[in-house]
Amino acid sequence: MEDCNMHIILLSGGAGTRLWPLSNSARSKQFLKLLTSPDGSLESIVQRLFRQLKNVGLNKSVLVSTNATQKDSFLSQIGSNLEIIAEPCRRDTFAAIILACTYLHDVQHLLAEEPIIVMPCDQYVDESYFDCIKQIASQVATGYADLVLMGIKPTYPSTKFGYIMPSHEMSGKAFKVDGFKEKPTEIMAEKYIRSNALWNGGVFGFKLGFVINIVKQYFNAIDFNIVYHQFKRLPKISFDYQVVERTKNIEVVEYDGSWDDLGTWSSLAVKTSKSQFGNVTATSTCVNSLIANELNIPIICSGLSDMVVVASYDGILVSRKDESEGLKKYVADLPTRPLYEERRWGTYKVVDAESFPNGLSQLTKNIVLKPGCSISYQVHQYRSEVWTIVNGTGLFVLDGVVKEVGPGDVLVILSKQKHAIKAKTELTMIEVQLGTELVESDIERFDWNW
Amino acid sequence: MEDCNMHIILLSGGAGTRLWPLSNSARSKQFLKLLTSPDGSLESIVQRLFRQLKNVGLNKSVLVSTNATQKDSFLSQIGSNLEIIAEPCRRDTFAAIILACTYLHDVQHLLAEEPIIVMPCDQYVDESYFDCIKQIASQVATGYADLVLMGIKPTYPSTKFGYIMPSHEMSGKAFKVDGFKEKPTEIMAEKYIRSNALWNGGVFGFKLGFVINIVKQYFNAIDFNIVYHQFKRLPKISFDYQVVERTKNIEVVEYDGSWDDLGTWSSLAVKTSKSQFGNVTATSTCVNSLIANELNIPIICSGLSDMVVVASYDGILVSRKDESEGLKKYVADLPTRPLYEERRWGTYKVVDAESFPNGLSQLTKNIVLKPGCSISYQVHQYRSEVWTIVNGTGLFVLDGVVKEVGPGDVLVILSKQKHAIKAKTELTMIEVQLGTELVESDIERFDWNW
Repeated sequence: MEDCNMHIILLSGGAGTRLWPLSNSARSKQFLKLLTSPDGSLESIVQRLFRQLKNVGLNKSVLVSTNATQKDSFLSQIGSNLEIIAEPCRRDTFAAIILACTYLHDVQHLLAEEPIIVMPCDQYVDESYFDCIKQIASQVATGYADLVLMGIKPTYPSTKFGYIMPSHEMSGKAFKVDGFKEKPTEIMAEKYIRSNALWNGGVFGFKLGFVINIVKQYFNAIDFNIVYHQFKRLPKISFDYQVVERTKNIEVVEYDGSWDDLGTWSSLAVKTSKSQFGNVTATSTCVNSLIANELNIPIICSGLSDMVVVASYDGILVSRKDESEGLKKYVADLPTRPLYEERRWGTYKVVDAESFPNGLSQLTKNIVLKPGCSISYQVHQYRSEVWTIVNGTGLFVLDGVVKEVGPGDVLVILSKQKHAIKAKTELTMIEVQLGTELVESDIERFDWNW
Repeated sequence: MEDCNMHIILLSGGAGTRLWPLSNSARSKQFLKLLTSPDGSLESIVQRLFRQLKNVGLNKSVLVSTNATQKDSFLSQIGSNLEIIAEPCRRDTFAAIILACTYLHDVQHLLAEEPIIVMPCDQYVDESYFDCIKQIASQVATGYADLVLMGIKPTYPSTKFGYIMPSHEMSGKAFKVDGFKEKPTEIMAEKYIRSNALWNGGVFGFKLGFVINIVKQYFNAIDFNIVYHQFKRLPKISFDYQVVERTKNIEVVEYDGSWDDLGTWSSLAVKTSKSQFGNVTATSTCVNSLIANELNIPIICSGLSDMVVVASYDGILVSRKDESEGLKKYVADLPTRPLYEERRWGTYKVVDAESFPNGLSQLTKNIVLKPGCSISYQVHQYRSEVWTIVNGTGLFVLDGVVKEVGPGDVLVILSKQKHAIKAKTELTMIEVQLGTELVESDIERFDWNW
């Protein structure tokens, strides 16, 4: 197949409660390193996708559209030369695609004729998926449809997915689309499948001009800065509802390779080559169970059958595999603060937290900075912080005064004092926060020239 | 029944790995607050026993024989006016009883005729147990036997207990004992039970003089200080092997009330009126399962049947109830340092710990001191400590200099610096240890007059 000059918009979002407690608002399922790469090391869904994109020569044409928190995870897992748009606030896929296309037009100066592919970043696929992507791009470039969708060949009558109903009329390698069906009953799903219906997996292509014409309905000029700063004006709605379902001239290309959205512990358990992660002891009476432990205390399991046991700094899940899907509502009731985060500069985990009768709270973190990375120059109004350096060396700034720090140094930062730290070598510190309001939003950032 | 002037030696020991991860070398099962007291609050096995002893008027006649670590737990759970002997090192029940009897003779000046009852502190019994104890004491006082045992009426042909074989010959309210049978097979156990055999639960009585005569075989004088300081000279053997099995003139009194040694999660689960402890969310599909969480992160459970899930700062257990007994060997392979301890002065939990390539390790603790309590004046050779006070007020001593401390104060203690702290109000601090050897034994204690 000939390669065409496509560009890919990779959408990454999701609060990620379905794979709780490993996923949280700062760590969606696509960043969990639970898959095994060809060299035997662990990789995340996103790392697997970029490895595959690189294999087929498409990694250079990717623009990631995500939020500020996930941006750090991408830079950390994929690399710093990745092109990323961080949305100023959470909307939905319609706004994300509007912003990304404006960027491609206004900043990258792509032509209206260029084929654009939109795809989610959290799917587990094989390499024939990328052949299908190229086929969609080529169909977009040479055909007459406004939108060319990927239709995934169903493997069972799922009630979780939307269905694309193709007609019998072909156009090149695509079918024309007759219509869409929302999540059906199992009986209806069986009927659709007999009529060659396909799952809608959220992958589609279009000429850049098609979306730019939509941008013009909301903004006077195709100007990235304007769209970015007026992002909130865009409706909070999916691209599917706002555009796909209102477009007449749609085609679909079938993909019948392996496909999974790894949205549940049971689907993930099938794809992982390991059944135990971290400090786990399982007796021989444990069968068909996934046990993952991110804590530094041991887990001992015995007599488990078809279970999932997952422990992280956010919490512990012990569930029968087939029930792990229904727990979203219980997770939603938990306090939402993530207790583990992977950032561009490193990681932190909350190791202790409590509130006292006098209104003060303490929160203790273990913070690891990568070599050369820094935490921004910042100030807090409602808390003091005590940093005890336990490993590595770095530079510490307090109200403009810089000093070298290393193991054993204790840095006391009062509220309203500006502070920052930069690691020379990998640096670990224990942070004790003390104050009346221990929230991530109590922060004001300033510039500092290291 | 008339009360007689008995004295009780309450034996408390046990490394406590069977109820891992709640029990550890510093926290045996008898101190876990998993039972419900009549007023609805949670109580430990030891607290239940002392409540029962008080109800029957026997709490004043108790001498506790235990080790230094458990001494703190007794003082914390039962009260500071409890009479306790802390053995200088771990031997077995023979040495413990020798030391306790020497104390009763030499320090309390009891007469050789006084009836002494020895009982373990970790049994779940009803109040008729204490009637049986009184009966044993009265049998000791008025009869001619050297030893009067309690025989527990078996409820099933257990292979875990030793059996006492009574003869048909009565002496007052006791039977003469024909012999003993070690842990039998189930078939043999059934046979013993048909011959009226009774379980040996480790409860027995004797006249003080009987044991004092044995003390004389090892020491020239019945002097508590000498026996205490030469404690190691005593053989490491149980009183059962060393004395009971070599004594001819033994009687047994039957107890047929409720009795359980609560040695396994499944037996404990039967006695707890609650099935969930701590921060636990269990769906309605969880049945017949015990879920206990001492961590401050949530546990969500779904679809559990006949399971035990227990999380503490020492680790996490997820097991089928009927398999939880066989895990001792796995627990034995884990690092043995307890990560949670209840002390006389308060509690501590290890919230984080790690070692670095340069040979340094850090260990972070949350330490709570009760009002008026203090940590001894001490020095460490191989570690520094940073204490951040996050709640309460107290007095801090560093190399002889005292100062008042409160929330936000940061106390840096270098290796070789003498230090102590005393709480005025309940005081919480985060301690960060940093050094080459982070072991509890790196400590030298000094006197300090507060």
